[in-house]
Amino acid sequence: MKKLLYQFDTDPMPSVFDNVVGYDGGADHITAYGGVTPANVGGLVDGAIFTRAPKDKKLTAIFVGGGNMVEGEALFKAVRKKFFAGFRVSVMLDSNGSNTTAAAGVAWLAHAAAKRGGSLAGKKAVVLAGSGPVGQRAAVMLAREGCEVTITSRDAAKGGAAAEAIQTRFGLSVKAVVARDPAGFAAAIDGAQVIFAAGAASAQLLTEAQWKDSPTLELLADANATPPLGIEGVDMMDKGVERHGKVVFGALGFGALKIALHRACVARMFEQNDLVLDADEVFAIAKTMVG
Amino acid sequence: MKKLLYQFDTDPMPSVFDNVVGYDGGADHITAYGGVTPANVGGLVDGAIFTRAPKDKKLTAIFVGGGNMVEGEALFKAVRKKFFAGFRVSVMLDSNGSNTTAAAGVAWLAHAAAKRGGSLAGKKAVVLAGSGPVGQRAAVMLAREGCEVTITSRDAAKGGAAAEAIQTRFGLSVKAVVARDPAGFAAAIDGAQVIFAAGAASAQLLTEAQWKDSPTLELLADANATPPLGIEGVDMMDKGVERHGKVVFGALGFGALKIALHRACVARMFEQNDLVLDADEVFAIAKTMVG
Amino acid sequence: MKKLLYQFDTDPMPSVFDNVVGYDGGADHITAYGGVTPANVGGLVDGAIFTRAPKDKKLTAIFVGGGNMVEGEALFKAVRKKFFAGFRVSVMLDSNGSNTTAAAGVAWLAHAAAKRGGSLAGKKAVVLAGSGPVGQRAAVMLAREGCEVTITSRDAAKGGAAAEAIQTRFGLSVKAVVARDPAGFAAAIDGAQVIFAAGAASAQLLTEAQWKDSPTLELLADANATPPLGIEGVDMMDKGVERHGKVVFGALGFGALKIALHRACVARMFEQNDLVLDADEVFAIAKTMVG
Repeated sequence: MKKLLYQFDTDPMPSVFDNVVGYDGGADHITAYGGVTPANVGGLVDGAIFTRAPKDKKLTAIFVGGGNMVEGEALFKAVRKKFFAGFRVSVMLDSNGSNTTAAAGVAWLAHAAAKRGGSLAGKKAVVLAGSGPVGQRAAVMLAREGCEVTITSRDAAKGGAAAEAIQTRFGLSVKAVVARDPAGFAAAIDGAQVIFAAGAASAQLLTEAQWKDSPTLELLADANATPPLGIEGVDMMDKGVERHGKVVFGALGFGALKIALHRACVARMFEQNDLVLDADEVFAIAKTMVG
Repeated sequence: MKKLLYQFDTDPMPSVFDNVVGYDGGADHITAYGGVTPANVGGLVDGAIFTRAPKDKKLTAIFVGGGNMVEGEALFKAVRKKFFAGFRVSVMLDSNGSNTTAAAGVAWLAHAAAKRGGSLAGKKAVVLAGSGPVGQRAAVMLAREGCEVTITSRDAAKGGAAAEAIQTRFGLSVKAVVARDPAGFAAAIDGAQVIFAAGAASAQLLTEAQWKDSPTLELLADANATPPLGIEGVDMMDKGVERHGKVVFGALGFGALKIALHRACVARMFEQNDLVLDADEVFAIAKTMVG
Repeated sequence: MKKLLYQFDTDPMPSVFDNVVGYDGGADHITAYGGVTPANVGGLVDGAIFTRAPKDKKLTAIFVGGGNMVEGEALFKAVRKKFFAGFRVSVMLDSNGSNTTAAAGVAWLAHAAAKRGGSLAGKKAVVLAGSGPVGQRAAVMLAREGCEVTITSRDAAKGGAAAEAIQTRFGLSVKAVVARDPAGFAAAIDGAQVIFAAGAASAQLLTEAQWKDSPTLELLADANATPPLGIEGVDMMDKGVERHGKVVFGALGFGALKIALHRACVARMFEQNDLVLDADEVFAIAKTMVG
């Protein structure tokens, strides 16, 4: 009996990225659906949960993806709502690569902190451009590690909504501040020990001059893989190198873990029929794989 | 050379149910299309019939599904219309699970009748809420077994159209009566030996009091798997148990045969390049599998 | 690690033909997308080029198809535009079967010329109804072989645009003439040694009387497989037979090479991560396979 992955994507065209990684994660077959919404997913989920005997249900799984995190979370919820009793299959949320990217980056930051004989607990962490999918998930994971987390956003309403979403969904308090220009970003990172840059492709958020002499800063990660990078002075291949006395990670530096993690998550789904993979579960797996 | 199944679904999102069962039936790969119509299917069928050598054509097959039986039958017809000479592949119609569900239920009823030393021939059978896909197919199969069949419908026009469709497509006469309330259903089953309930999910058609003391009733099957069931007093797991002296089948009771049958039909398609699986052929296979 | 083929089709429903041949060409899995355009393909290509390690990228490939050649060429260009450095995968263009059909037909014509102790070089070739996908590609390949090529079109503007497109894309000069009736086609083939008929299904372009006594004509190929054929007096199974002293090929006669060639092209894509298969490359492969 084949391992069947149903890829439910909120975008019209289902992600090729998620499709390739799904196969590399061990799915025997992936059927990809675009334009999936809470309104049309019900019958699709029924087909996943009603077709195989209890012992075989673990060989069917659902992946929820797409570029929009709000839509992804709503779809993820709608999928799980159809489950009852033993009629369920494993399901993973990774809209825009949010969970796996954030988990890989934060796991590397935690690993680097441990190597320096400490941990992330108690540190001030700033997630730059943190109101998007990756930024929100990074904020959650940094907070879970005990950081005092601030996210920045160009827009006060958007930042506030993200902080509220994190509070509602995960019961965690993060602070939101507005930063849209060099002075704003400089102010935001003042006193921070950890920076996670989650800005858009090719959007520089910090100049090298702004961070290289910071007396508090210890750890930096930048998820932007398209030059100019989010943090000037970071190389996208950086994987725990020291720059100006700080430990630095570039997007491709932790990208290998991101892909390996994504594959591992897909593989895990086929080991049981009731795994739910969102931020906490994906991060827990990342921490076992890092290093 | 791989066994390729082309899943042509009349709904916008192709059925996950049919997809899973297609793989479990032995397809090596399934490519699923949504929104398929007689108008756009021509080129797709050409691709299925023109790509492989005569000896290999049996390794390509077409499954027509979707929630709407009228659309499914039109599509099924349009697919077959493209075939000519040896340029054909096997094709199966199972919109809304109609053929496999009805065949599994009626095959079990026939099996139960045989176990009691008789057969369905000559019995009065009533298909409750019988104007839909499953109901129409159950009516056809019961009539093929020699029953005198009546279908009920909430709406006289709908019931009449269903009876006419059965006459046109299968050359069988079934009677249509209107039943939309307890009194109507009670009148419809008066004097019947066999009941097949094909109502919507969670729609109770008969109370237990209405059938338990019937002096004529011998066999009941209920295709509704979502409580409240179509026939009160039937358990969805019932698989030929006696209740009030009648032999009773619930939706999950004959559901195992339905799935096994659906898989077997898919498997059969890959054994030859000219199999056409509709009500009669699916029912014939069901009778070889029941018991 | 599986060989993954991404089928990007410019039509709403991705081609079943290309899908079957993709599997028969050795793809382990094909994910088919309909309605792909230069505007929505970017993210899909990113997913193909960013997901696997350099050594494994050759196991991902992209096929661009669909019924419309202009759309296909634009999409093919948009796909390649996303590639950079080692971040690329092999890609093939075959809208409407244009490259593989034309290459199979012209390769057989070249083969027949060689068997007669000559070559196509220097011959006058006419592509009837040559402004469409197959016709344009056939014109390119005949010109590459050294023919002096004329294409006919019902419409002067369309023929001119096709000739200009060939000049722009391939740097080759072909002549375009208008032909829309028997007299027009007769005039177009006057003095020609080679004819390639690329008209629509069931559209007869030449009567047998028009070509059988031509003192110059040596080689004919007709890509139309649906009677009436494009060239009266040709049988669709003809594979280099002599008729009226000319060597003749029908659509099914060179169709076996077309399918084998299409499969071989798919197989080649998985041998390296930077193969680009368009007219010249497909034709070069065809010439190694013919005979």
